[in-house]
Amino acid sequence: MKSHTKHLVMHTNERMEFVNITPDVERELKASGIREGLCLVNAMHITASVFINDDEPGLHEDYKRWLEWLAPYDASPQRYHHNRTGEDNGDAHHKRQVMGREVVVAVTNGKLDVGPWEQIFYGEFDGRRDKRVMVKIIGE
Amino acid sequence: MKSHTKHLVMHTNERMEFVNITPDVERELKASGIREGLCLVNAMHITASVFINDDEPGLHEDYKRWLEWLAPYDASPQRYHHNRTGEDNGDAHHKRQVMGREVVVAVTNGKLDVGPWEQIFYGEFDGRRDKRVMVKIIGE
Amino acid sequence: MKSHTKHLVMHTNERMEFVNITPDVERELKASGIREGLCLVNAMHITASVFINDDEPGLHEDYKRWLEWLAPYDASPQRYHHNRTGEDNGDAHHKRQVMGREVVVAVTNGKLDVGPWEQIFYGEFDGRRDKRVMVKIIGE
Repeated sequence: MKSHTKHLVMHTNERMEFVNITPDVERELKASGIREGLCLVNAMHITASVFINDDEPGLHEDYKRWLEWLAPYDASPQRYHHNRTGEDNGDAHHKRQVMGREVVVAVTNGKLDVGPWEQIFYGEFDGRRDKRVMVKIIGE
Repeated sequence: MKSHTKHLVMHTNERMEFVNITPDVERELKASGIREGLCLVNAMHITASVFINDDEPGLHEDYKRWLEWLAPYDASPQRYHHNRTGEDNGDAHHKRQVMGREVVVAVTNGKLDVGPWEQIFYGEFDGRRDKRVMVKIIGE
Repeated sequence: MKSHTKHLVMHTNERMEFVNITPDVERELKASGIREGLCLVNAMHITASVFINDDEPGLHEDYKRWLEWLAPYDASPQRYHHNRTGEDNGDAHHKRQVMGREVVVAVTNGKLDVGPWEQIFYGEFDGRRDKRVMVKIIGE
């Protein structure tokens, strides 16, 4: 069994932002030399997500508005007890649960075995600083 | 390490519908000959889910009503910017995020190592056309 | 390829409760002797979750209040059709979908390869009875 490990560094300009990291994952898969196996991609921070969906800007606007409805940004310690710690990112911990921490993708014949519209996104909910994304591939 | 790959084809009659695919996954596991490992099952389309929950029709009705509250169907381009592309499935991209893209199931002694009520479902949110589900099993 | 399988038994005093199981998963990883691979941790019951987030009591209060807004406890069969079966846990099946069933964690150099704040939690939504959590590790 082979394995390949890479920590990508992400840094967004916006507090909430989605970044297509499919090319980064494909590059790591190629570097791994693995032809059959599984590829895990996950946020290593708990106010960020990795998810698979459409690379369509209108949909991303919809997600942002929807997540803001589900868990509004509010720095005060009244809405989010978490913000009593001095943080202002209680909302981001909630948004991340809706969008998920990770994806696991099949590797077949040396390629990500995904549907035609599946794109891998990093979802940032408390950005403007360096964060890491794990890419771990195991197989043969 | 062995691996086994199968794309199941799904086609629902309803726009939103849940299909128990546990027997299909068990059949692929048997075909794989793998006794110890991991089994990934994921939707290959971004308006569908694979999730594990109860095979109980009342619960499925509850899920449908709840998902319609969280992300109502609305073909207009006002609610979902995504529908400005000519699509009418903005809601389906949201419902899929709540229910999730994939499950990873342990394989032990040649069987899916699941709890007594765990059943694997395909969750369709924009149906009435062919879509694919990945079953990938790796192990020995 | 090596594999290691453990069913943890969980029993919470509260109906909804979060338990940090990171030390249990680390203990199983050590017992497995696996240095490179993937570690799956999932609830084996469909009214419970395994998720990764912050070990901060204020945040856990926020999650509980938020989940109660998203899917309120209501034993009556009016709100949840599922409760027509004689159950009173329709809400718990919904809360579990928001928080997720499972996490997959990379194993690198014999350790869980996680970010500094990533802690693995068992999320119980219908507690006060024994339930099981799967830990499955594969690799070399």
